[in-house]
Amino acid sequence: MASIIGTWRMSYDSVAEAYRRLCGGESAMNAVEYAVAEVEKNPAFTSVGYGGLPARDGQVYLDAGWMDGNTLRCGAVLSVRHISSPVKAARLLCGRAKNWMLCGEGAEAFAIAAGIPVMDMRTDNSVHRWRERLADEISAAGAYDGHDTVCVIAKDDEGHLIVGTSTSGLFMKEPGRVGDTPIAGSGFYADAEAGAAAATGLGEDIMRGCLSYETVARMRAGDNVQHAVETALQTYMMRRDRMGEETENISLIAMDAAGNVGAATSMESFPFAAGTPDGMFLYEAVYRHGQLTIGRRHPEDIPLGS
Amino acid sequence: MASIIGTWRMSYDSVAEAYRRLCGGESAMNAVEYAVAEVEKNPAFTSVGYGGLPARDGQVYLDAGWMDGNTLRCGAVLSVRHISSPVKAARLLCGRAKNWMLCGEGAEAFAIAAGIPVMDMRTDNSVHRWRERLADEISAAGAYDGHDTVCVIAKDDEGHLIVGTSTSGLFMKEPGRVGDTPIAGSGFYADAEAGAAAATGLGEDIMRGCLSYETVARMRAGDNVQHAVETALQTYMMRRDRMGEETENISLIAMDAAGNVGAATSMESFPFAAGTPDGMFLYEAVYRHGQLTIGRRHPEDIPLGS
Repeated sequence: MASIIGTWRMSYDSVAEAYRRLCGGESAMNAVEYAVAEVEKNPAFTSVGYGGLPARDGQVYLDAGWMDGNTLRCGAVLSVRHISSPVKAARLLCGRAKNWMLCGEGAEAFAIAAGIPVMDMRTDNSVHRWRERLADEISAAGAYDGHDTVCVIAKDDEGHLIVGTSTSGLFMKEPGRVGDTPIAGSGFYADAEAGAAAATGLGEDIMRGCLSYETVARMRAGDNVQHAVETALQTYMMRRDRMGEETENISLIAMDAAGNVGAATSMESFPFAAGTPDGMFLYEAVYRHGQLTIGRRHPEDIPLGS
Repeated sequence: MASIIGTWRMSYDSVAEAYRRLCGGESAMNAVEYAVAEVEKNPAFTSVGYGGLPARDGQVYLDAGWMDGNTLRCGAVLSVRHISSPVKAARLLCGRAKNWMLCGEGAEAFAIAAGIPVMDMRTDNSVHRWRERLADEISAAGAYDGHDTVCVIAKDDEGHLIVGTSTSGLFMKEPGRVGDTPIAGSGFYADAEAGAAAATGLGEDIMRGCLSYETVARMRAGDNVQHAVETALQTYMMRRDRMGEETENISLIAMDAAGNVGAATSMESFPFAAGTPDGMFLYEAVYRHGQLTIGRRHPEDIPLGS
């Protein structure tokens, strides 16, 4: 059975269309690339791709990752400024035995050679947000304020299991900062024999727990997908709790080898989109008083940018 | 009890000195930084730091990682050309809640601000090796020929568990290529409640299996250190075998929370250095006909560069 799951309300429309295509026989690869790239090119979504959140220097640096669960092959681009579709570059790097993770200008040279259009990924709005923030003189080390990653996992009828991710990273980050999004094991992981997972939230904390790999490892050990993703996150939250650290901003999506989906969050609201034989729905995961609940929501009831 | 373990013959002398210091009360942090930085600054070791293996463009791009198993905090620099001690930069980034993984010029700006000397990390020898290889017209996509990473794990008497890594990466790599060395979960991982691990070999393949995290997760589940590191590698090799892929170039070192050490390799010879209450020795792990054996060796019997 074909299935797909994507992070946040912003992925709902493209995930829904990708699900229709999957059901029509499209490959998981094409479905994931489509769903992620649609979010990348929409400047209304300010935390991914074109018009993404700028770094301290006003530039938009993007990260993207890709993994094929059937081959365990990956591709990733880190801290790129001019690649119109970072997820497409990551997909094209996947399949290489070497040099599949490229940062900065090296990644841009690859994209140019591969024929991916290059362009300035800043918009008037991204420059405006940066100027405003500078004027606010709010420390860039301050609170979490939106660094939402689009992550999409899909399985097609042929059994191909694919995950793709894309983000502009932390608002006002230091130039060159890389988060979990392009990092195999942290931002994403897929093994068609077990399942796949992907993460969104504060990348620095996701990487300290290797949360996507941990989720897949739990499925490999026999956990069902929802239990795997919940316990992966909860075990890490308890580990941090023992160090006096609170976990505020981590959400995970997951899919097992059969196409069943699950999600977990440490946030009060984590919307995600999923298409399964049950149908195509927007869901909201809510974590409150130590309890995780997941329910369906009307897409109109959740703000588009969340 | 204080313990230390480091990859390859090249780390033996600095690991032995670091072990003396550890036994004299030095912190695990200082012991790891010392042992890795000594290898970085020695141009005779051509796969790490000063005089490292050049990329296709003749430049030396370096990667380094750091993790504190007691806090789960990390630091990492990716694809840097001018930082005299990449591991020192990674150590200094560790402790930050955000922006602890920096690539390229962003990482170099951090190093300059932190007072780490910057310099051209090429030597006449590294430029010569690059020219020779260009003249050979051997494809950079060819065989493995030396991309050995120095990884050091140490635990001090206070119970601090630290891992540090440093490399120049794959010879003739594409500029901007990043391997496993600076990636938490792949090149290194440490959790003082379970243990630590680090990897050396073809980074692209290490990242596909998240091998350092997998090793630590097995210790967390109750495996002893040697069994954990062996089964982490072997399970991955079998997974690749089912896809028709041979695993040629991966080696791992590990330490449990009590300071016991272990190692595994897919190579015919993987020398490593370890100081434990048994004493300070050079060991060689040998993988042949599907069997792993580990024995002590005289440091004089193993070539210094290996």
